[in-house]
Amino acid sequence: MAQEILVVGSTALDTVETAHGKVEDALGGSAFYFSAAASRYAPVQVVGVVGDDFPLEQLAALRQLGVSLDGLEIVPGGRTFRWGGRYHADMMGRDTLFTELGVFQTFQPRIPEQARRRPVLFLANIQPSLQLDVLDQMESPLLVVTDTMNLWIDTALADLKRVIARTHILIVNDEEARQITGQRHLLAAARALLSLGPRTVVVKKGEHGALMVRADSLFAAPALPLELVVDPTGAGDTFAGGFVGSLALEGRVDEGSLRRAVIRGSALASFSVEDFSLGRLLSVTPAELETRLREFAALTEFTLV
Amino acid sequence: MAQEILVVGSTALDTVETAHGKVEDALGGSAFYFSAAASRYAPVQVVGVVGDDFPLEQLAALRQLGVSLDGLEIVPGGRTFRWGGRYHADMMGRDTLFTELGVFQTFQPRIPEQARRRPVLFLANIQPSLQLDVLDQMESPLLVVTDTMNLWIDTALADLKRVIARTHILIVNDEEARQITGQRHLLAAARALLSLGPRTVVVKKGEHGALMVRADSLFAAPALPLELVVDPTGAGDTFAGGFVGSLALEGRVDEGSLRRAVIRGSALASFSVEDFSLGRLLSVTPAELETRLREFAALTEFTLV
Repeated sequence: MAQEILVVGSTALDTVETAHGKVEDALGGSAFYFSAAASRYAPVQVVGVVGDDFPLEQLAALRQLGVSLDGLEIVPGGRTFRWGGRYHADMMGRDTLFTELGVFQTFQPRIPEQARRRPVLFLANIQPSLQLDVLDQMESPLLVVTDTMNLWIDTALADLKRVIARTHILIVNDEEARQITGQRHLLAAARALLSLGPRTVVVKKGEHGALMVRADSLFAAPALPLELVVDPTGAGDTFAGGFVGSLALEGRVDEGSLRRAVIRGSALASFSVEDFSLGRLLSVTPAELETRLREFAALTEFTLV
Repeated sequence: MAQEILVVGSTALDTVETAHGKVEDALGGSAFYFSAAASRYAPVQVVGVVGDDFPLEQLAALRQLGVSLDGLEIVPGGRTFRWGGRYHADMMGRDTLFTELGVFQTFQPRIPEQARRRPVLFLANIQPSLQLDVLDQMESPLLVVTDTMNLWIDTALADLKRVIARTHILIVNDEEARQITGQRHLLAAARALLSLGPRTVVVKKGEHGALMVRADSLFAAPALPLELVVDPTGAGDTFAGGFVGSLALEGRVDEGSLRRAVIRGSALASFSVEDFSLGRLLSVTPAELETRLREFAALTEFTLV
């Protein structure tokens, strides 16, 4: 039976414009992307905060996937975190049009009593001091997986390193890996991150896939070359959701499970970018997901003789 | 029995400086890198040109690998093509310090009579009009593999497209693929290249590996994350050498052979960069090569259940 996951992260409304169109006030934030993906494999509970302007009815689809929203704090009179961005034509870069933190600015995660014993914790990208606070509230989780971003590396590196020291699996992108460690060479950077505590470091490289580095193994997973990218927002959180969900499903963290988790995370991320917001993540069927996973296998397999 | 390969390309003396040291007038040029790699798997004959200042005794190691140099023209009183470059500390960029074309400037490839029936032809990166001339001299090669560079895309695109139309397998890097086709999206660019004639397009992505695109299949191969890069010069030509050599060894061009060829090319390229010039390519033992190939398999393998 799958192990239960707790995710603490942002719960937001995104306004996103790409070459393929625009959405306004659509479901966004790391915790929602993460749980839409992770709930494909294991039960997920979200801890986050929204204002009472939040369209709660839009969460019905997440609930149907088995996501528990009991830990979603609703601040009376508060305004939900909103982010607006416009992607460049090549989908590589984007401009942030606005960031209205709203109730997220004073977010103090409170882990519900019954959720503190969840065995699997995903610390999505929030301020490291809050990540530490969450760790202190939990009762010895078996597996702690952590994400972060360049802002915290610049402004709260000491706290971030404390979080990393209490992390089993760190998920970062290539630039973050270099920025935290000061190592330009990606493999050296990943090894330096291992020396901070985690047993496993997963480096996301966008269109170039992911590299998983452990003390005695390396795994390189490609990204699926995509025909159509409608909206890249949330791909990293979706990857983390598929990754953590897969580990929770299997209930173990050996090399084979970790590799499968990277592939499942990559597959879900490849769906996520096919539509705005959580659109495709919520509509993908188990059969479509299975087909996509087989495409990843077909993409990389070879024999030496 | 392996099929015989003919390579036409540059044969040069390189002066290279990296963070790890410097070499002067060391063996370089696409045809030498290519043949050092390809000869691991199949007999190779080189067609190129040098001046009579060329240190022929330095070719002994290539001859020992079975490389035929009967087609290496030596121009009396001529000066060998020399290139000088300095790599940046991160090995990502480099500055060309000098390019002295010498006898290469007026190179007119003459394919020896006995070499015109070689079944496998590698057109290394030379002027497209010369590549066409070589194709005209050959007697219906079974397999034509072609490389090029940004200079010819800028200055001789029409001729280059004629070469590509007569090519079975095109090897380019990601920027060249985009530049030839005007397609920013890599998969779209590769598909556009297929429409120019080749059955197979291999896109080299440097540290991100390679993507092989055919009408009905995709193969993504990672690069081995390297601990030590001493000199990246020639890695692309070495890749091509391992790739073409592998196909010549197997004598067929089905999906399995092509994938193995990509891996063998990647493995030899990973050795090439461990030392200056052809140093490591000439010293690698069959056992070391076999171990490296198994590392590639270990790097990418996973199971879906």
